[in-house]
Formats: sequence, structure tokens, C-alpha cells
Amino acid sequence: MFLKALYLDERYGRLSDFLFLSTDAMSPKITVELLRQLRQAMKNSKYITEPIQAYIIPSGDAHQSEYIAPCDCRREFICGFNGSAGTAIVTEQHAALWTDGRYFLQASQQMDNNWTLMKMGLKETPSQEDWLVSILPENSKVGVDPWIIAADQWKSMSKALSSAGHSLVAVQDNLIDTIWEDRPAPPSTKLITLGLKYTGLTWQDKVTALRGKMAERKISWFVVTALDEIAWLFNLRGSDIEYNPVFFAYAIIGISNIKLFVDSKRLLDPAVQEHLELDSPSKPELTIQCFPYESVYTELQAVCAALAPKEKMWICDKASCALTQVIPKSHRSAIPYTPLCLAKAVKNPTEIQAMKMAHIKDAVALCELFAWLEKEIPKGMVTEISVADKAEELRSQQRDFVGLSFPTISSVGPNGAIIHYRPLPETNRTLSLNEVYLIDSGAQYLDGTTDVTRTVHFGTPTDYEKECFTYVLKGHIAVSAAVFPNGTKGHLLDSFARAALWDSGLDYLHGTGHGVGCFLNVHEGPCGISYKTFADEPLEAGMIVSDEPGYYEDGSFGIRIENVVLVIPAKTKYNYRNRGSLTFEPLTLVPIQLKMINTDLLTQKERDWVNDYHKTCRETIGAELERQGRKAALDWLIRETQPIV
Amino acid sequence: MFLKALYLDERYGRLSDFLFLSTDAMSPKITVELLRQLRQAMKNSKYITEPIQAYIIPSGDAHQSEYIAPCDCRREFICGFNGSAGTAIVTEQHAALWTDGRYFLQASQQMDNNWTLMKMGLKETPSQEDWLVSILPENSKVGVDPWIIAADQWKSMSKALSSAGHSLVAVQDNLIDTIWEDRPAPPSTKLITLGLKYTGLTWQDKVTALRGKMAERKISWFVVTALDEIAWLFNLRGSDIEYNPVFFAYAIIGISNIKLFVDSKRLLDPAVQEHLELDSPSKPELTIQCFPYESVYTELQAVCAALAPKEKMWICDKASCALTQVIPKSHRSAIPYTPLCLAKAVKNPTEIQAMKMAHIKDAVALCELFAWLEKEIPKGMVTEISVADKAEELRSQQRDFVGLSFPTISSVGPNGAIIHYRPLPETNRTLSLNEVYLIDSGAQYLDGTTDVTRTVHFGTPTDYEKECFTYVLKGHIAVSAAVFPNGTKGHLLDSFARAALWDSGLDYLHGTGHGVGCFLNVHEGPCGISYKTFADEPLEAGMIVSDEPGYYEDGSFGIRIENVVLVIPAKTKYNYRNRGSLTFEPLTLVPIQLKMINTDLLTQKERDWVNDYHKTCRETIGAELERQGRKAALDWLIRETQPIV
Repeated sequence: MFLKALYLDERYGRLSDFLFLSTDAMSPKITVELLRQLRQAMKNSKYITEPIQAYIIPSGDAHQSEYIAPCDCRREFICGFNGSAGTAIVTEQHAALWTDGRYFLQASQQMDNNWTLMKMGLKETPSQEDWLVSILPENSKVGVDPWIIAADQWKSMSKALSSAGHSLVAVQDNLIDTIWEDRPAPPSTKLITLGLKYTGLTWQDKVTALRGKMAERKISWFVVTALDEIAWLFNLRGSDIEYNPVFFAYAIIGISNIKLFVDSKRLLDPAVQEHLELDSPSKPELTIQCFPYESVYTELQAVCAALAPKEKMWICDKASCALTQVIPKSHRSAIPYTPLCLAKAVKNPTEIQAMKMAHIKDAVALCELFAWLEKEIPKGMVTEISVADKAEELRSQQRDFVGLSFPTISSVGPNGAIIHYRPLPETNRTLSLNEVYLIDSGAQYLDGTTDVTRTVHFGTPTDYEKECFTYVLKGHIAVSAAVFPNGTKGHLLDSFARAALWDSGLDYLHGTGHGVGCFLNVHEGPCGISYKTFADEPLEAGMIVSDEPGYYEDGSFGIRIENVVLVIPAKTKYNYRNRGSLTFEPLTLVPIQLKMINTDLLTQKERDWVNDYHKTCRETIGAELERQGRKAALDWLIRETQPIV
Repeated sequence: MFLKALYLDERYGRLSDFLFLSTDAMSPKITVELLRQLRQAMKNSKYITEPIQAYIIPSGDAHQSEYIAPCDCRREFICGFNGSAGTAIVTEQHAALWTDGRYFLQASQQMDNNWTLMKMGLKETPSQEDWLVSILPENSKVGVDPWIIAADQWKSMSKALSSAGHSLVAVQDNLIDTIWEDRPAPPSTKLITLGLKYTGLTWQDKVTALRGKMAERKISWFVVTALDEIAWLFNLRGSDIEYNPVFFAYAIIGISNIKLFVDSKRLLDPAVQEHLELDSPSKPELTIQCFPYESVYTELQAVCAALAPKEKMWICDKASCALTQVIPKSHRSAIPYTPLCLAKAVKNPTEIQAMKMAHIKDAVALCELFAWLEKEIPKGMVTEISVADKAEELRSQQRDFVGLSFPTISSVGPNGAIIHYRPLPETNRTLSLNEVYLIDSGAQYLDGTTDVTRTVHFGTPTDYEKECFTYVLKGHIAVSAAVFPNGTKGHLLDSFARAALWDSGLDYLHGTGHGVGCFLNVHEGPCGISYKTFADEPLEAGMIVSDEPGYYEDGSFGIRIENVVLVIPAKTKYNYRNRGSLTFEPLTLVPIQLKMINTDLLTQKERDWVNDYHKTCRETIGAELERQGRKAALDWLIRETQPIV
């Protein structure tokens, strides 16, 4: 499943034509009264010293998470639009929502006529800044909650506004919250402690390693704001946000201090207390001081007040404006990727072993699913939704299953061409022997996170479908089998995935791969494989990414072949400048449907790759299917992994 | 021949080991007295209001040219180091030079012990900013000539210094010039006027088109500072800078004004007068107002003073700080690539035809050269320098020859592994039947610019040499035959050139291609093929770039295969979203030595490419050789273009 941010491609302009979502059943949210209340709040001296002329409602949370909790769905609350990306701005006279091509139809159906839809990516659509400048009276104040706008976004918006004589102001009370009567409470789910068996390193080891990195760069403090970084550092997981096993927290790590900000109720659990050594720390510098989640601001102020003149503090440049601005500029070192983000991306041997185990179990579930589908589809009762449910049921039978890692994309025929499709009752299609079926799904297990896409046909695919599938497969193999020097950035591999499609005049408008967490977020930085990112970090042995080229024929079908792959050292004939080489090892071990392949279009090397891959699937997954006594799936696996000649 | 800037690769760290230049004959310049004089000037109230504690001497000219005229070699004058890249900084106590790995040895040999060599790319080497901050007394002033520092460089240096309590100050009188007694006069060579036959468009057409672009973006003025843009716009050429047919000038283009700043003597030439319609402009808005070169500053001030409040002025963000700062911020629109840079890059049909003609003539000269070499080498008297001279002689026999487009790289055996090698008497090797020979050369003709590299063996190459050559060839073909969608940026093709080398653990540490001008600079923006550039503009039909992968075995041999290629529309089976596809057509038509190819390593598609290419060489160049009556070269061509099976 690809990184959401990869969908929108400014290079190719308009995506609106093909990224539609059938939303007949949606009716717009009535917002007259809400807008009236918000506009009153914008003038209410209870919240602000001077009235503001515009209020920006971004879609993120205080941690700039990709997925957010219900209590943070403020943009959806005010305008009705519930897509993953969008920014609302309300002025005294206007209300407008900016979103990208994949959501034009959905947004227009979910919003009432108090709202103007700003179609991002179209030439005629003004940027938020330009629009504000064009409609605001002179010397206007534009408000935003500094906790949910990232520091880098604040910077550019503030610059644009002030160069036109306006100003961006931080409104401490979130104005949406002041009018949101039944706003859900912030979640505070039970924490899971992860032992060495899963993590390979204690949190104490990780803190010590982090401090080593800080010392190297003469950094005395590091403010950790990304939820997955905190979860990884402390070997803890939560379920505050659906699909992402994280929990709301902040941490401030000093050379001899560890300050953890989290709802104190969560720390009453004896397992957590013991895990964090709250009562009896092994070493003084590994003592965790616990604070309420909300006190991060004042505590950071206190830390900053005590800084020596030359002391430096790390914070990610995507952290909230609110926290970033607490740190005086002279002490602040804003970095694009934190050392935790980098450390987390390079999996250690225990994590790699655990991820492999999770992928074996996941493959077992999928083999079962496909065997079941072959039997059930002819009966005509299997739908996109029922497959998704069945897949979840089969995965949940596997040991250490926790939940899904993202909403299953289960799509038949033309629905497959909607890249971000998610079946809804009103769009749900029945699987048949006549259409291509695409399923992109994954799960969280205690030992790892999975994400796999297979595209199959249960009848006879057309020559054109096979041709397109084979180009996608050639691209998938080109990345998976690529050998490249240590130090290569993932974006340099993206074209390998496209070459076969390009040769025939085809392409796909999303990136080829994203980093994958280990029982963590299914999308994580700092590496990936996409023509759109240049600031990615070089690939390293131990990193895990997805390899998922595709092809989408509007109104007909969608094809995507996705494996999660591990970066491993490659053996090469020579070793230029002793740099060493890398390649990928597939962790996903689910057969690629032979029926969809036009083998004439494959080179001998590609045929060998398919056969080797299927041999590994048969051996590794076959053994586990046998162990679990899943006979039907085993038969299916053996049939689907016959070598091609 | 690759873009100089592409050599230094921060990703791979140290280049010093392999990028050496044998400079035994070099002795350091004695700089004691010069440094004393410069340090006096740094305190001399004749030049500066307050003493400066450091003075920066960049290596560029006022137009940020890649190649510079002798009068602009100020950095060489002060420290002795004459490599193409380097920045000198002199403080009251220290003198230091920053340069990159290809020049470490050369710089250390050319500079005396008053200078510290700062080896860029090594971890322990401080940046100029960090070094200055570490050694300057508090509140220091650092001076620089604002004409030879680019606006974007000024900005970052100024920011770094002021955040440490110092300041960067513009010193209007260049302090090097004040102590450089025998400084050469700025060149003012005769101008060449180019007719429609070469340019396809009159300068009036070009100005009108430019104004169209300006109107589109509501820009009322454009300050043109790049010498090749001015030459292209006015269909004029000069020879102020070796190898680059440009002339020192500025232009300020308004919606109804054309201001040209050039040494007035050059305009006395009746041909130039007529060409520019100085006496009788066809239309009032196409009247060129001529000013002395030096008055650009005051004239720009005058234009700026008369600007209406919302008027905007374009200037390239790489233009000099001096000119950039004349334009008030509120009126300034600094752009990374100017519309002239973009227009110049997309060659029109006349230019394409002319470039093809130039490449045919160039190939004739090279076929002659190779035929001559085969005959002469066994005699044992042919050296790197004598081949370079012979190549120039043969090229000069061709119609409309003007000069070389860069210094010929002629290298035997281990010298070939020095990527920026240029034969000097003390390094000159004799060609033999036992070593690989690499020649990278090109010329300026009135109708176009050429740049071609061939690697050949006159005896029997080793299996390893052939293997490496074949990988390089596979990379060359992979780029040349690539099909890719309209809108693709060149850097996305770079990995295609490396895949075959990477597979065997090999690589090369320079980019794959650069833009090529049409009887203009052999290196031009805004397009190219390099993993190091992200800000390149998408490739478009009509653009011309080089395709030049290589492989360099330290101490043994260098391999590079370079063609200049034209971006053309590609016919594909499908046409996804009507975007259209592109591919390349080689303009360079010189056989690739079959003897160096291990044909077993080629796919059938690659063999077909070689045969098709050689068929075109034989037909096109054969016809011209026949017409010119060059029998020996024709025989050589026919033998060297036999199809492989």
C-alpha cells in the first residue's frame, strides 16, 4: 500500500479524471451553524486577544501523524470532508477547502454550499497563501493552532502572509474544539511492552546509542515528537490511532535525562512500570521521569531556560510549530530526519527475523484466502467487502495477530483503477470469472508489519490484461533484483520499475515504494523508492521497503504487484572502491499468478527470478502450511508455484 | 566531456586517491609579498570604509561563467592554484584554499606554504563558513567582491556569518585587481553575426517570444546576465572566453525596451550595426539602446527607480550579488532558470539541422583521425598531445570550423583513469598497441557544437578491458534507446546508464550527461542526466544532451563512450493519458570500436542497436567522406561498421 503522499503528482497535472470515488450515498454535512459559531470564536476575546480575519484548519494532529485519531478530525468536523488530505480555511466571508485530485468528487459531495472546493493541482486554483492575500482586508491576522501546523509549514505561510502585510498568529485554544460539543476524548489505550525477543535491543540500549549520536554532534537535548519514534525507542506499542500501533506521547532526551510525557494512567500497569524500570532504574542516567502528556510545553520551557549558551537541541523540522518555537533559535537545530528515524529504519537481526516470521504467517493467510476464493467465486456471492473480511479473519487466526496495518484495498474490475479505493457498501462489486481482482492488504503482528498486493484473475484474462500485468511484473523484478552500490538513494531505482511500461507508452502515477516499520507504521521514512522524493536517505542493508509498481486502466482494471523487500548486501564479481553493493530479498512470499503472465515478454533472467521466487514461496510457506495443517491452501500453493519454462 | 560541476561527488567521499594529476614539473607560486599587499589593501581606507578581517576570492567572473577569461583568474593569481574550481580566503593571519578531490595534489604543488589546502569532501575539512567562524575575532567583517559572488551564495554565507556575530560586506573595488600589476585587459573580441540559416529565428523574434513569456507572468523587466543567453538572444557570438563563443555583455529587456551593455568599440563593425538594426530599427519596441558594459549598474538603478509599485523584474538566482541587490526585494523575482535558458535549450528545426551538419563534419574529422592513428601508431611516435593536435588540424579543415569546444582529453592507459586529464608535456604518453586510448574532444562550428568520446585499442584488449567496455556500452545504449514519458526529468534516466556496471559491482563517479549548446557552450542547462541534480528541467523534444557513461580503473585505463543525442518524440504501442513519449537520436556518428565489445554480454536488442547505429554512421558519414574524397577514412569507416552477429 503506497504512501498517501505519493498519490498526488504535480508533474502530470490533473488526476481528477481517474481518481474518483463513487460516493452516491454521501450527503453533504450542513455547516451553516458551525461556521457561524467558528466565526464568533474568531472574534471572541476569550480565545484571542485581537479578532482574526481567517482561521486555518490543517488535517494533522500534534505529532504530524499520517493517520489520526477521531478527536483530531477537526477539518472533517468543520467541513464534512473526511478524506486523508485537505486544509480548510474559514474567513469572515468565505470557507474553502484545498484537496488534491483523488478527492475532488468526494469533497464536493461531502461539503455543503457554504464551502468552496479548491482543486489543488489545477492551474487556475490559487494556493492557500495567494487566496488569502487576494481576499483579506489589509493588515489581517490569520490564525492557526500552532500544535497542528508543522514548523516548516508555519514558516512558509508566515513569510507569504507577512510579505503581503498580513500576519500569521498562533491561537493557543483550538477554535474547532471550542465549538465541537461531542468531540471524542483523546484515546489512552493500554500499552503493550515488547521484549527483547521482538526488539533485539532494550530501550536502555537504544537510549544509550541515541546519546552516542547526540554526543557526536555535540547535541545536549533531543525533543522526540513523532509517535512511532517514541514507540520504537521505548519498545512500547499502543492503539491510540487505528492501524498504527502507537500512543500519544512526547519525549525529551538529554545526555543524562529521560523525560517521558504520557497520560499517567497508562503507567499504572505493572508490566509497563517494570518495563520502564520506573521504580528501580538500573542506572541513574537511565531513570525515566514521567510527566503528564500536556506538560511537555512547560517542561520544555524549563529545559530551555536552563541551557548553557552554546548548548544545542535537536527537533525535527516537521515537529509542531508550538514546540519548535519554545526552543530559542540559537539553541535549536532543526533536522529533516531524526537519528531515531534513521536507527528505526535499519532493522536489527532480531527485527529482521521477526519481520520474516510475520510475513510467513501473513502468506499462510493469503494462500488460504486465494484457495478459498477459487472455490467460492463461482457461487457468485463473494464481494470486495466479503473478501476483505475473510482476509482479516484468516490473518486473525495467525499467532500474535494484532490488527490490520491499513484499510484493505479490495477491488474488482474498474474499481481497481481507483488507486486509493476502499470498498464501501455503495461501491461494493461482486468477484467474478470475468474481471481482474486486486487486493492490497496487510496486518500488524507482534513480530512485524505486512503489506502485500496481488492482482489475479479467476477466469481467463485478456491478452491486454496479461500484457500490462507482465510489464508491471518486469518492473517489480527490475527493482527486486537490482544490484546497486552502497550509498544509493532509493529514488534512483524508481525508473527501473517503469522501464518496461515506458517502452510501451504506459506508466503509473504513484511512487514505487515506501519504508515499512516493524510492528509499527506501514509507512515510514526516511527511505523509499519514488521519483518524487529527493531528500530520501540512502538505502542501507537492514532497511525494509515496499516494491509496488502498477498500471491502472481507467474504467477497466487496476494492476499492482507489491512485495515488502529487505535491503541486503549483494555479492558482485567486482567491488569498485570497496564500496560494496546492495540488493533486495523479498519478505513477502505469496505466489504471483502465473495465469496473468505473458511469458513470451519475459527475458530468461526474469523467468528465472519468477521460478526462484516461487520455489522459495513453496518451500517456506509450504512448510508452515503443512505445520498448520492447511491442506487446501498447500495444494493451491503447490499448483501456483509450478516453474515456468 | 562532462560538466565540471559533476565531478565532485559528496556521496562517495574522497576522490583524492584516484583524481590525481601528475604535476612533477609544477612549482609553487611565491605569495609572501602578494599576501602582504592584499592584507594592506584589506585595511586601506581607499577601498573600504572599515578594515575587513577576511577577504574571499571566488573563482568565477561577473557572469558566473564556467570557463573564465585570463583577466578573471584572480584566485589563481593570489594563490597559484589554477584548477577550475576553488575558493581562496585570506585573513590577517591565515590564507586557505578550498578545492575538491580532483585538485588536491595539483593545489598542494602549486601553492606555497603560506597557504592551507582545505580538502573539500573530507570529513575533517571545515566549510568556509565554519572555518571563518572558528578563527575570526568577534564582530569581524568579511569582504567579497559582490560582482563575482552569486546572489544565492552571498545569501547563505551572509546568513552563516551573521548568526555568529560577524558580517559579510561587499567590497566594490576588487582587492586582487588593486595589487595585480600586469592584470590582462578584459577581452573585447570581434563579434560574429549569425544569420537565419544558422539560428532559425531572428533576434527580434526571440525578443518578442521572450516578452510573451514575461507578459504571461506579469514581469515587466528581465536582467540577462549569463553570457550564453545574451549571445543566443541576439544571434551574436564572440571569443572573449576560450572554447565558449560568448562575449562580455549584459542586457535588460523590458516590455518595450532593449538595453544592451557591451564595449562600444564592438558596435562600430558595420555588420554588427546592421544586424542589430542600430541605425534603422524595424519597430520602435525593437530598438536596441546601447550602453557601455560598465554602466549596467547605474542603468539598472535608473530602471528600478522608475518602477511602478507592483512591477516585477526577473533575474537569475545565480546572477551576481551586486546586480541582484540593485533590484528592491519587492520588485525582484529571482528564478533558478531563466526563460532564455529554457528557450535556448529547446533547439528549433534550423538549429537541429545545423547541429546535425556540424556533427557530420566532426565525424569526418574523427574517421580521418582514427584511420591515420592505425597507420601511425606502430611507428611509435604518436603521443597524447600529437593526437590532440592532429584532431584539431583535421577538424579545422572542415567548413565553418571556429575552434575547439573544450581542451581535448587525450589519454593513454592509466592517464585515461584521470577523469579530467589534459595532456601536458610532463605527463604526455605515447600511444601503443598495448594500452587503451581514450579521446574526448569537440569543436565549435558556425553551425554547431560537438563533444564526443571514443575509447579504442590498437592492439588486442584484455578480456577485462572488453568486459568493462561492454558494460559501459550497455549503459550508453540503455540511455540512448530509453523511451520515457514527456515531462520526465533527465536525472531519472541516470541509473539506466549504470545498471550493467552495478550488476558487476562497478560504477563511475560522474554524471551521465549535460546539455549542449548550438555553437555555444558545450555545457549548458537546464537539462542533463545526473543523479546529483534534482532541479533539472524535464527533457523536451528538441533538447540536446550528452550520453557519456564510463568506467575508470585507477592506474590502468579509462573508458568512456559519449555521443551527443537529440531528444525526439518516440512512437509507442500505447499512449497513456495522451502524454506522449520521448527517446534520443544520436547526433554523433562515429563508430564504436567493435574490437572492444564482448558481444556475448550484449542482448539481441543491444546488438541490433549497435548494428543500426553503425549502419547510420556508414550511410551518413560515408556519403560525406566520399564527397570530400577522403578514401582512407572511408575504408576505415566501412571496416569499422560491419554488423555484429
